[in-house]
Amino acid sequence: MWRVTWLLLLATTVWQRGHTTEDENAQSPRHVSVVIVGSTGDLARKYLWQGFFRLYSSQVGKGYTFSFYGGGLSPSEKGTPLLFEILKELKCPPELAAERCALVKEQFLRLSQYIQLKTVEDYEKLSQQIEQQLKQEDMVEAGRLFYLSVPAFAYADVSSKINSTCRPPAEAWFRVVLEKPFGHDFESAQLLAAQLAGFLKEEEMYRIDHYLGKEVVAQILSFRKKNSNFLEPIWNRHHIERIEIVLKETLVCKGRIQFYDQYGVIRDVLQNHLTEVLTLLMMKIPANLSNSEEVLKNKLNVFSFLAPLGRNSVVVGQYQKYTEEVQEELNKTKDYFSRTPTFAGVGIFTDSPQYDGIPIFMTSGKMLDERVGYARILFKNDIFCVQDYSHVSCKPKQIVFHLGHGALDYPAILVSKNLFKPSLVSSVWREVTEHKDISVLGLPLSDYYIQTPVAPKEAYYVLINKVLHGRKDSFISADNLLASWAFWTPLLDSLVQAFPRPYPGGAANGDLLNFQLRGRELAYVNEAVVNVIQQGQDENFQVMQGKFRGAEMVSAWAKELVERLASDLQSIAEEVIQDEGQFHLVLSGGSSPIALFLQLALHHYTFPWHQTHVWLADERCVPTTDAGSNFRTIYEQLLQHVRIPYFNIHPMPVQLNQRLCVEEDGGALLYEKEINQHVNASSFHYVLLGVGQDGHTASLFQDSKLDETGERLVTLTESPVKPHQRMSLTFTAINKARRVGVLVMGKRKHELVTQLSRIKGQDNPEVAEGV
Amino acid sequence: MWRVTWLLLLATTVWQRGHTTEDENAQSPRHVSVVIVGSTGDLARKYLWQGFFRLYSSQVGKGYTFSFYGGGLSPSEKGTPLLFEILKELKCPPELAAERCALVKEQFLRLSQYIQLKTVEDYEKLSQQIEQQLKQEDMVEAGRLFYLSVPAFAYADVSSKINSTCRPPAEAWFRVVLEKPFGHDFESAQLLAAQLAGFLKEEEMYRIDHYLGKEVVAQILSFRKKNSNFLEPIWNRHHIERIEIVLKETLVCKGRIQFYDQYGVIRDVLQNHLTEVLTLLMMKIPANLSNSEEVLKNKLNVFSFLAPLGRNSVVVGQYQKYTEEVQEELNKTKDYFSRTPTFAGVGIFTDSPQYDGIPIFMTSGKMLDERVGYARILFKNDIFCVQDYSHVSCKPKQIVFHLGHGALDYPAILVSKNLFKPSLVSSVWREVTEHKDISVLGLPLSDYYIQTPVAPKEAYYVLINKVLHGRKDSFISADNLLASWAFWTPLLDSLVQAFPRPYPGGAANGDLLNFQLRGRELAYVNEAVVNVIQQGQDENFQVMQGKFRGAEMVSAWAKELVERLASDLQSIAEEVIQDEGQFHLVLSGGSSPIALFLQLALHHYTFPWHQTHVWLADERCVPTTDAGSNFRTIYEQLLQHVRIPYFNIHPMPVQLNQRLCVEEDGGALLYEKEINQHVNASSFHYVLLGVGQDGHTASLFQDSKLDETGERLVTLTESPVKPHQRMSLTFTAINKARRVGVLVMGKRKHELVTQLSRIKGQDNPEVAEGV
Repeated sequence: MWRVTWLLLLATTVWQRGHTTEDENAQSPRHVSVVIVGSTGDLARKYLWQGFFRLYSSQVGKGYTFSFYGGGLSPSEKGTPLLFEILKELKCPPELAAERCALVKEQFLRLSQYIQLKTVEDYEKLSQQIEQQLKQEDMVEAGRLFYLSVPAFAYADVSSKINSTCRPPAEAWFRVVLEKPFGHDFESAQLLAAQLAGFLKEEEMYRIDHYLGKEVVAQILSFRKKNSNFLEPIWNRHHIERIEIVLKETLVCKGRIQFYDQYGVIRDVLQNHLTEVLTLLMMKIPANLSNSEEVLKNKLNVFSFLAPLGRNSVVVGQYQKYTEEVQEELNKTKDYFSRTPTFAGVGIFTDSPQYDGIPIFMTSGKMLDERVGYARILFKNDIFCVQDYSHVSCKPKQIVFHLGHGALDYPAILVSKNLFKPSLVSSVWREVTEHKDISVLGLPLSDYYIQTPVAPKEAYYVLINKVLHGRKDSFISADNLLASWAFWTPLLDSLVQAFPRPYPGGAANGDLLNFQLRGRELAYVNEAVVNVIQQGQDENFQVMQGKFRGAEMVSAWAKELVERLASDLQSIAEEVIQDEGQFHLVLSGGSSPIALFLQLALHHYTFPWHQTHVWLADERCVPTTDAGSNFRTIYEQLLQHVRIPYFNIHPMPVQLNQRLCVEEDGGALLYEKEINQHVNASSFHYVLLGVGQDGHTASLFQDSKLDETGERLVTLTESPVKPHQRMSLTFTAINKARRVGVLVMGKRKHELVTQLSRIKGQDNPEVAEGV
Repeated sequence: MWRVTWLLLLATTVWQRGHTTEDENAQSPRHVSVVIVGSTGDLARKYLWQGFFRLYSSQVGKGYTFSFYGGGLSPSEKGTPLLFEILKELKCPPELAAERCALVKEQFLRLSQYIQLKTVEDYEKLSQQIEQQLKQEDMVEAGRLFYLSVPAFAYADVSSKINSTCRPPAEAWFRVVLEKPFGHDFESAQLLAAQLAGFLKEEEMYRIDHYLGKEVVAQILSFRKKNSNFLEPIWNRHHIERIEIVLKETLVCKGRIQFYDQYGVIRDVLQNHLTEVLTLLMMKIPANLSNSEEVLKNKLNVFSFLAPLGRNSVVVGQYQKYTEEVQEELNKTKDYFSRTPTFAGVGIFTDSPQYDGIPIFMTSGKMLDERVGYARILFKNDIFCVQDYSHVSCKPKQIVFHLGHGALDYPAILVSKNLFKPSLVSSVWREVTEHKDISVLGLPLSDYYIQTPVAPKEAYYVLINKVLHGRKDSFISADNLLASWAFWTPLLDSLVQAFPRPYPGGAANGDLLNFQLRGRELAYVNEAVVNVIQQGQDENFQVMQGKFRGAEMVSAWAKELVERLASDLQSIAEEVIQDEGQFHLVLSGGSSPIALFLQLALHHYTFPWHQTHVWLADERCVPTTDAGSNFRTIYEQLLQHVRIPYFNIHPMPVQLNQRLCVEEDGGALLYEKEINQHVNASSFHYVLLGVGQDGHTASLFQDSKLDETGERLVTLTESPVKPHQRMSLTFTAINKARRVGVLVMGKRKHELVTQLSRIKGQDNPEVAEGV
């Protein structure tokens, strides 16, 4: 029976080519061979065949002819009926009338066949079959499309076989579609990428994220571009209050635990789907939207300005039944439980002048109260409503990219009417003017301009179509993939030991999963669970009490120490300025003072920076753009956040004549001269020193020939650790100071406090030790 | 009959003193003479006598005895019955039982008398009467309190008379209470202050703003201080989204037009009442709340960081019936109309690191939809609600100082429950736990912690009490008054020619008066009316077209010109950096480039600042802190807003060895050396020049001996206008540049474009002219 079908198939192929010559496309049609590897699996059954069928129906008579090979590990006798079962269930695309569809479907079935693809010989046979058919029917080959619908572990093997056997001649293209997961973290993704690169060129690989095929997602860039006259002025930190990228699900993981427990919600949804949406929202709009290279480049650039994520960027949860599901599906005992999160909320920030300060809330979870996906851009409320508060202009201003489901239940882009009337993103979209009586994200539908696709298309169909046309911008490039993993991996690593908060699921979750920002850190609004763990950590801290060399030593919890020191500094500064008009403060680099800098920048708004001069105690002989530069730390953590006049900042001149700390360039002397010019009697008002791991202070190391510096205020010194060369204030300069504070923070430096007697001649340093 | 009353009065005074010795206050009671000048006027009738009566009732037996003199211009025969009419209507204070009140009221009436106060002899007689009484009854004098309830024009005259006749001996205090208006603008307020200072010492003057007596206003500082552990971390720009200070009225001005039309809503309400509320919200909390001096000093300091107001900081309106009222009350013809605003919305910003960027909406108006007064601090929404959106934590976080009226209808401080549970501000306040079913500013009462005074007190009573106790912090100091006028006067001046938007009044206003921020500027949401006027202004602009000396000249509307120039600059910078890694840009000072700087800072987020070096074309020999410093302009308008590395900024070294532009200090040579070090072949990539009123460019003036500079890149020059000394790039340096742009903006510089041929040797400058 099946043998007969083969013959019919071949006949139809010829028949169809005959028809396409009548088409408006004058060129003779070219042939595409489609091979689905894993053609009777779940994904293929649910989406792929349906997608290829619609592709075929839309391409009939449009310049391409097709053969479809459904590959699988089973022998033909077993695979062919399985495939037939799938194919006969194919549904008609909405744009096709029933009669026409029946005809097209019959053709499609004739063009499709099952083929065993297990051994390299099987692939060879496939290739021969393709070539034979092309030859027999005198067809020009357009290309070969391999869709790998197989588990990720099989990618390398399948690719290797395809590579060695199925490549078309140079004139025809060769495209291989891959499905996620593309690795488990940065390292494994890199490994997988390297493996595949041995068999396939980057331009041949089409890594699918089906979110990029969702029509609303696919139109984000077009929307941004078409409405750029409205959006450009407001698409920035001055106008955007927050961005939310949300995928809420009601389902459980039951049946998928084998996979899911290895991955969790962040790998399953955030690292790929939601990150793709994020990049589309944040990327620079390409000058040419159909220039795949430019699109991918601009997308990639987004990762360069995303601030790193850490343990405090995230809250995680796990629905309570998950434990049971895991025990069952993974055959675990009753005391086993998994730490895999089924819910995550992440607070993402950027280090971009355009978006700096805008919180991006990204969240997804299983067993939540509703199924809905959206990205929302909420703009700042710049209106003051004197009256008529319910007027549309008094309501939230927002744009919602509604991916689907929820109360709205169709894909749409919604723009609140108090923003602007957007252009349609495409000619096959339409404006929605009749609404259900519902609200979406706080606004009734009547307060939105709404647009939606005229005839919604399934994401896989959209993407398969893009593969056919070689539109690589709708797929994940290797660079983008690795950048995304590089972004997410540190967060994933930080979560290995984290306990997700248990939640009951559905409406019963109440406000249990709501989270909030504190600065740039995230925490559940209801904190009870988390606190216990944090207290445990605190208990490791040690406190040291007492006096040090006759001077008062302030020992305290790090936070209190820093608060105390900052307050002291401000009092001293105010006092000095009242008497002398100016306050000369010397700061050190290193990590200890960072907390102090932040305390000063964020809590001491009234610090008299305008009358304060900032000097450096020491500097490494590195370019000031180097991460190791003390000045860079001080500038980035403190000075750029406060209103200190430019000329009150005195970096050490370690770089002169385009070289670093060369004695002849006289940098130390230059700094000394600057001190003499500004500072009365060269006596600084406050010198804040740190202490290094080896007990050095400033950059005065134990073996420096300190006595040789005499009356000099600034000197070049050698450090035993890299970078060796330093410029430093001398003990002479430090001892002239009115006040000296030594900040010792961190557990490891605890024992170093006693070494402070090495600061010669300083009778009465103020020592502040934090642990 | 009145004669009899006098005798009784004297007797009662004695009787009362007899009683106070039984008091816990062991000291013998001291006598206070209260004189209300204008004692039968509107204010006295409505508030003052009532206030003094309550003061008296609260002080009976508490260490003071009193006499009350009601002064007026009328002779005694006419004034006495008038005053008696007022006094017999006095209401009992709520804390007094009816029986006790009747007794106290009888005493109060006996202690009060009318007295004609017209000529200096009248005042002399008053003084004699006070002294005589003190002597006769052997009383120790505590002080004399004069309440001037007279029009402002009479202040100087009355003060002069009081000063010359009624001063008590040195041991007793002398306090004069004054009612607003205290001037009409800065100048008149200064004049009035100077006049009064001729007769009264600052510490003797109690300038009343009755808002400071409103109990909620009076407790703002105490609330902030008592809850500082909660408030300190959030009372800043990181957490506050906006502040609203609002007084809405439903009344019209009818009957008050004589006064009102001279003043308008800004002088009537914003400059005084609402500004007082503003300062209490923004001021640094004094270490000691009962230290009047510290309170007033901290209050005054607020004005130092309020950003200046201008025409675009405000929207104004006038209710439509106002015209009719004005015509009637001022006897004007039917074609007369007044520009006095009866509604104003103002957007105030601060230049404070603590509050920078927080918009403060201050608004008040007549004939609005409801009567209500409040100050609202709305905090940023830092929560993401995954579910349970109606949970209190998902709602707005805010603190409302509710002055009175509105739906709530009582004075209260409301803190949304998602913030914190506040302490009671005072022992005579109570928490409100039973609520009406209403909402206040978007939250139902049940979502607030609410506190209110147990027994509300009238503002005038509160303030009269403060006068008695010499608490000057509840009054307006001369410094604060002048600072407030200095703040408001430029705005008032800018409004002289402005047409207020007409509004119908009440609910019919709809959204007509709602306003919104654009950047830091304010505009009505519905713009129709304003646009017409703005278009009229635009028509004065001129556009010049064509070519200039063979170079393309970009002539355009200022906005387009700036946009074009900024885009060009970015393209050039990107191109240069791609080739050479660094972009060396020379900028000029002056006012023309400011628009360009803002365009770059606010719209060109992707400008490659990290690889850009900024140099100066010229600099004035002034300290860099001087407003005239070119560097200061460039730094404040551009550099501090972008992410440019510190060491990429190259100010001209006009100040060396603590002196300005001294030839021997070699500043010009130093800058030249810096250029040589950084800039390849000393050839800048882009030099952007402005053109001065006299046609000079950079600081190369027509009479500079330019040819003498030879191969020098930097030189000191003389300007014909102040400040004369300049440092400037030479033509040699400018001509070496790859590109030179000349920006000519403003109508007055239009004719100067032709003078640009004075730039010798520059073959092909790019000239951009804006008008």
